[in-house]
Amino acid sequence: MSFTFSNDVVVRFAETDAQGVAHHASYLVWFEVTRIEYLRRFRGGYKGLRDEGVDALTLEAYARYRSAARFDDHLKIHARCGDLRGARFRFDYEVERDDGETVAVGWTTHACVSVGDHRPTRVPTWLAEAITQAESD
Amino acid sequence: MSFTFSNDVVVRFAETDAQGVAHHASYLVWFEVTRIEYLRRFRGGYKGLRDEGVDALTLEAYARYRSAARFDDHLKIHARCGDLRGARFRFDYEVERDDGETVAVGWTTHACVSVGDHRPTRVPTWLAEAITQAESD
Amino acid sequence: MSFTFSNDVVVRFAETDAQGVAHHASYLVWFEVTRIEYLRRFRGGYKGLRDEGVDALTLEAYARYRSAARFDDHLKIHARCGDLRGARFRFDYEVERDDGETVAVGWTTHACVSVGDHRPTRVPTWLAEAITQAESD
Amino acid sequence: MSFTFSNDVVVRFAETDAQGVAHHASYLVWFEVTRIEYLRRFRGGYKGLRDEGVDALTLEAYARYRSAARFDDHLKIHARCGDLRGARFRFDYEVERDDGETVAVGWTTHACVSVGDHRPTRVPTWLAEAITQAESD
Repeated sequence: MSFTFSNDVVVRFAETDAQGVAHHASYLVWFEVTRIEYLRRFRGGYKGLRDEGVDALTLEAYARYRSAARFDDHLKIHARCGDLRGARFRFDYEVERDDGETVAVGWTTHACVSVGDHRPTRVPTWLAEAITQAESD
Repeated sequence: MSFTFSNDVVVRFAETDAQGVAHHASYLVWFEVTRIEYLRRFRGGYKGLRDEGVDALTLEAYARYRSAARFDDHLKIHARCGDLRGARFRFDYEVERDDGETVAVGWTTHACVSVGDHRPTRVPTWLAEAITQAESD
Repeated sequence: MSFTFSNDVVVRFAETDAQGVAHHASYLVWFEVTRIEYLRRFRGGYKGLRDEGVDALTLEAYARYRSAARFDDHLKIHARCGDLRGARFRFDYEVERDDGETVAVGWTTHACVSVGDHRPTRVPTWLAEAITQAESD
Repeated sequence: MSFTFSNDVVVRFAETDAQGVAHHASYLVWFEVTRIEYLRRFRGGYKGLRDEGVDALTLEAYARYRSAARFDDHLKIHARCGDLRGARFRFDYEVERDDGETVAVGWTTHACVSVGDHRPTRVPTWLAEAITQAESD
């Protein structure tokens, strides 16, 4: 899979565990941080989206851990957004260490909801178009 | 210092770090969990407080780490509430492992605020009285 | 799917996020806490396993979020272990709130490795047999 | 207090809580991340220190929360190291939002120990000198 976007993350000491590696739940946080940076390029990003009255829920999360990330590892989280259909969208991720090794892969699915009552709402047209444009470049 | 209340916490694997011990930030979370359990004994507890329109902010937090807590250690978090003055109150803590060793001590200070605008508001009388009563037993 | 084991978790305030719900990464921590409790019933549990020189890595994690868990929700994490083949095993989970609603489902896959060099090693026979026995009850 | 070093942190969504603000335990993690970056300027940094057989424990942590940090706030964590005496040292912090507001202040104290047995050991001379030099600039 090819990626058009990536975000840099350095493994924090607080994210390691007694096995001496990054705890596996940390990856979901890195995926989220990367989604925020991904969206930041479009208008006001995730914050702008919320200001417009649209929030995004996480419906599913999956990660496959191929090798261990350790304290202070410099990681590149590649991300790609797709499957935009109605209220739903999906992100795919690849976590690459700066030695070129793929540490993990994963994906998450999401749904747009209105901020107030959390009822499903379509991905705003401007955002769907901006993402489609960015991913086709 | 004597304590009239304690709450049991088992160190989670996710709370350990690459030094093989519980990460020092985890203690603030255990303090918080213990405050919630402390307050649960009075009317609706912290949730009931929020339903009444009163929230509590953390103003300060302090912890002194005497020895390491490790994965799966069974800890007793002793807690005592005091210094209730106007909007403010304070909690003191002692973290004791089941072998009797004191792992850490700490304290936090708090202020009651109204849920909406986060303006200072007095600790509700019923709560101040219930705490004073409980601590004097 | 039927479950023979469950573990109680109360949603901590620190586990919530600005959407007012439990952050989706918290579920992986609850799954882990539940695995630890699941294994505790057999000899020395996870700790005993490590003392025997056997550690367990997480290879994959998946969660599907059906509805939101909120602060102080009392959750029952149902768990079942299976697919024990050589070094590998799998856990399935269902997160049920005390009002009976299923909040989330998920699964994780794992591999036993030797503590020192993290090379794959078979699930100890005594543990494989104890789990098979427990799950067939 | 004047600071010669600062580190940038963006508030992660996972670090917020149901009050809509950054959870107070997150600050200890940001302090730690900032210490790591502070030390990175000297030889191999914290990792190099551990490779030399020297680890650093956190003895105390204190934070005073002046105003709330929120999701996506861009924070500058100012840090200064001092009180180097034997095995001990201390860090002071000030958390400043990019609108110039001081969000929090805090400090931590630490002790150098040998990696193996966690016995107190002096701060390596090269590090003590490098820090003293950096702070006097």
